Amino acid sequence: MRYLITFSYDGTNFNGYQKQLNKRTIQEEIEKVLTKINNYKVLITASGRTDSKVHAINQKAHFDFDKKIQLEKLKNAMNSLLPDDIYIKRIQKVKKDFHARFDVVAKEYEYKINMGKYNPLERNYVYQYNDKLNINLIKEAIKYLEGTHNFKTFTKTTNEQKNYIRTIIKTEVKLKNNILTISFKGTGFLRYMVRNMIGTLICVGEGKIKPVEIKEMLKKQDRKCAPFTARPEGLYLKNVYYK
Amino acid sequence: MRYLITFSYDGTNFNGYQKQLNKRTIQEEIEKVLTKINNYKVLITASGRTDSKVHAINQKAHFDFDKKIQLEKLKNAMNSLLPDDIYIKRIQKVKKDFHARFDVVAKEYEYKINMGKYNPLERNYVYQYNDKLNINLIKEAIKYLEGTHNFKTFTKTTNEQKNYIRTIIKTEVKLKNNILTISFKGTGFLRYMVRNMIGTLICVGEGKIKPVEIKEMLKKQDRKCAPFTARPEGLYLKNVYYK
Repeated sequence: MRYLITFSYDGTNFNGYQKQLNKRTIQEEIEKVLTKINNYKVLITASGRTDSKVHAINQKAHFDFDKKIQLEKLKNAMNSLLPDDIYIKRIQKVKKDFHARFDVVAKEYEYKINMGKYNPLERNYVYQYNDKLNINLIKEAIKYLEGTHNFKTFTKTTNEQKNYIRTIIKTEVKLKNNILTISFKGTGFLRYMVRNMIGTLICVGEGKIKPVEIKEMLKKQDRKCAPFTARPEGLYLKNVYYK
Repeated sequence: MRYLITFSYDGTNFNGYQKQLNKRTIQEEIEKVLTKINNYKVLITASGRTDSKVHAINQKAHFDFDKKIQLEKLKNAMNSLLPDDIYIKRIQKVKKDFHARFDVVAKEYEYKINMGKYNPLERNYVYQYNDKLNINLIKEAIKYLEGTHNFKTFTKTTNEQKNYIRTIIKTEVKLKNNILTISFKGTGFLRYMVRNMIGTLICVGEGKIKPVEIKEMLKKQDRKCAPFTARPEGLYLKNVYYK
């Protein structure tokens, strides 16, 4: 049987989602627990990885499981064995050929920036920019990122891949109590793409880059164009969509 | 010169406010930094201690300082030397006889309870009760705590002191997105008093204790009456008031 889990995690104390030797990762913690319940090695496949310190509200992963067990019981067993910074929100049965990564039709990310005073209680959950940004400029600039583009400018410098074309379906810029929340919904995102777009939008909000320059930056397809990669702790994988 | 600082902290990784041998405390971190800036031992006196894992939005403390330094410079120096889970929000000069503990006229505490699903991202900041509570019963019960009473029932069992009389000036019960926030403003609070009152109010919300029983519990002045001490991570010292 193939199952799909929806889970949330606090990325603060993890070296990212993906398994690595001798490092604490979300994938490993979940696989350890499933293997324990199943009595036989279980591997999980997520919608994609998240970097060290990045959080997830609704990450998704599939796995195959031999043991017969009720969904609710399996969920409770997992949550009682998992560390307190990961939580399984839902388990569903899916078709044998469902794939948590290849079947993704859209993903949603959210990034939080504190424009008010430094807040030690949110230091791991909101980027402590602690200064004002021009929100109207950011709102103007983000529109240039919407649509289908080659996003090579906004990927990780060392990352080579075949296809840099992605579609950003929807963006949003919201302000509440000095916390600026910028969200992107897209068909897919390249490595560091959200954090590089956020870094650029912060420069726009500072007046260092004009909104219209985003258009040029996209055209150049040059990874040296993006000014900086925004810190990971403000980033949340909010949703993953399937057909 | 005597100074008053207003500061916030994330209590998660501290063994409480008060200095203890070989333990990480807020008092010690601040004294270490002030001593370093002053080049001579500086001791601070707070409005009161907070327990391990309890947070503060506006804690206050006074200290005497020899070195001549501008307030803004001193604040910046402190924040640059302090660990990222403590933040100095304000420094003011006060009279030589001002006392951060003895001059308190009121304090305000807030306690947060998640009645929705477990949220790993807020596990250190909101008590994960993860079930419904009857808010109307809690609102009815909390009224019996308002006013001047002997609060011996709600103190720490091992704590002996002369005077258990305190006045609760104002209480509030608010619900937003499944987070129940209960706040108390009072002339002073005994050790564990807020967490014991919260433990009792949770039992009221579960229907295990009737609101009117609070009246009896106060009268009994018996520390065995309070059902349990609510967990520390939901508690915030929100404000300290002086004349």
